Amino acid sequence: MRSVAVAFAMPDSTFGRVFHGADLAALHAAHTVRLLADRPLDLDGAADTARLAEVEVLVTGWGSPVLDTGRLDRMPRLRAVVHSAGSIRPVVDDAVWERGIAVASSATANAVPVAEYSVAMIVLAAKRALAGADLLRAADGHAVDIEGSWPVVGMHGITVGVVGASRVGRAVIERLRGYDVRVVLADPHIDEDEVARLGVARMELGDLCAASDVVSLHAPLLPSTVGMLDRAAIDRMRPGATLLNTARGGLVDQEALADRLDRGDLAAILDVTEPEVLPPGARLRSTPNTFITPHLAGSQGNELRRLAGNAVRETLAFSLTGTFAEPIAFERSILQA
Amino acid sequence: MRSVAVAFAMPDSTFGRVFHGADLAALHAAHTVRLLADRPLDLDGAADTARLAEVEVLVTGWGSPVLDTGRLDRMPRLRAVVHSAGSIRPVVDDAVWERGIAVASSATANAVPVAEYSVAMIVLAAKRALAGADLLRAADGHAVDIEGSWPVVGMHGITVGVVGASRVGRAVIERLRGYDVRVVLADPHIDEDEVARLGVARMELGDLCAASDVVSLHAPLLPSTVGMLDRAAIDRMRPGATLLNTARGGLVDQEALADRLDRGDLAAILDVTEPEVLPPGARLRSTPNTFITPHLAGSQGNELRRLAGNAVRETLAFSLTGTFAEPIAFERSILQA
Repeated sequence: MRSVAVAFAMPDSTFGRVFHGADLAALHAAHTVRLLADRPLDLDGAADTARLAEVEVLVTGWGSPVLDTGRLDRMPRLRAVVHSAGSIRPVVDDAVWERGIAVASSATANAVPVAEYSVAMIVLAAKRALAGADLLRAADGHAVDIEGSWPVVGMHGITVGVVGASRVGRAVIERLRGYDVRVVLADPHIDEDEVARLGVARMELGDLCAASDVVSLHAPLLPSTVGMLDRAAIDRMRPGATLLNTARGGLVDQEALADRLDRGDLAAILDVTEPEVLPPGARLRSTPNTFITPHLAGSQGNELRRLAGNAVRETLAFSLTGTFAEPIAFERSILQA
Repeated sequence: MRSVAVAFAMPDSTFGRVFHGADLAALHAAHTVRLLADRPLDLDGAADTARLAEVEVLVTGWGSPVLDTGRLDRMPRLRAVVHSAGSIRPVVDDAVWERGIAVASSATANAVPVAEYSVAMIVLAAKRALAGADLLRAADGHAVDIEGSWPVVGMHGITVGVVGASRVGRAVIERLRGYDVRVVLADPHIDEDEVARLGVARMELGDLCAASDVVSLHAPLLPSTVGMLDRAAIDRMRPGATLLNTARGGLVDQEALADRLDRGDLAAILDVTEPEVLPPGARLRSTPNTFITPHLAGSQGNELRRLAGNAVRETLAFSLTGTFAEPIAFERSILQA
């Protein structure tokens, strides 16, 4: 059996963080794979020109250079790209699709920790755990009354609004089946069969905001989704509701959100903001009931092992069968990344 | 069919918080139930003497007076107690068992929110979400490095140590099946068949502490369990581990915990402390990596609907069949409350 030439292309920092010796060993051990280097290749300089000419499968990751025409021209034998991160948009240019190069991503693997984080935060938002800790600290030795402090308390019988039937959105919906909550979904692209299969009610975004005790964003950031949670949608959110954003800060009109938070009847748990790190004077750094984490819902630490494992598995699958276990089609990449 | 005389006995505040009009309506609607009053009876004063003489099923709750010989003597027809909270120990005296009175609790219903909260906090502890928010705030506009800030980051492949195969402990174990973690259990009372059924490895408490990235306490507070997480056990916890306590503060040697937290290599998420509200000068209020919530893991707000629903269902079951759906035996009450 012929072996397939495989190489990495990503920043050294990504490579060292995601791929361990065991992953390289698994590739070296496969008869069907010929790993060209135990380090990422340089797609632009002269050092790796000869190796690039051989590459058939390229493993990319966070911070990989975009695979445009110029770079693809240096890899005439390239047949497949295995992306070891979630969204392929920063790396896969139209030129990749035009040349018929197969693409696999690790979006499904990367969806796991985001969904786990989202469900955990939905529970704690419903139970007012973060606010409870603040109240307790401020009460300085006195008892606090959680139920009297907020319009809705508890994870029983509430409505959770999922915005976007992305991989993460679907994973959140599946995990919420284990809870006594109603789940509603806003997504303009999903068809009715799929809605029925997910077992949720579909709503327009504004109606979802008006119906939900927690609104959780899982839509991709696209020209059509920038600011999709606009002032009108935010103003329709129920008193006592919580907005959870683990997707992208740009989905939200942050000025409108800050205005609503200043009214004191909404909570926000934001793992992402725009910009990614808010400057010291940013309004959302001091609005009430606002909890901001530094974009950590996605794969962190040992969770990166899932990404490396997926990239190795897809590389081996392609080397054996010429196809991926979970290939990405162009349309799917737009709607579900 | 004869109807069974039912009454409530609990503080008005508990009654108003847990039972809604719909619950009373459900009892009134049953042919098999005769509800003696739409309010709690007074077990001690003279006002309800005649009603107490009739009571066959007594519905109790948080803060109900203990059912000792004197009070039981006023209810000669009492055959069953339905407790609308978790632990029956504060209410059910030995005299109840000696008279052969059947007892049901709502411990299973009350275990749901505690297990939900526990699993959510295990996820967020593993992902360092609470610490991440603090780091981000302190970084004042700069990016933060979660992975570099702590020895263990991520919810993939870690070990979770569950202390106590109580209802809550078992519910936590069941929910953790949906995660890529190893679960180990410390419980001196559970038999090997049950350990096998739960699909966990059993360890001594000290070994569990040494093996676990998160240690979650779910044991009852008994004379034999006071301070069970002692200095030796705490010192065996791994660098980077988190202690989660949603059970009772008295299970933990808090001085030893504060000493270990001061070393900076352990985190603690405490929903309960001893005393329940720590005074302003308490060490745990200022130790690093310490997150304290005001005993809110148990049923709060809408979650109380589960307790009322369970109490109504058990009352109806007893009125129809003379037995409970989920009766409590004396031994179970000690080990699993």
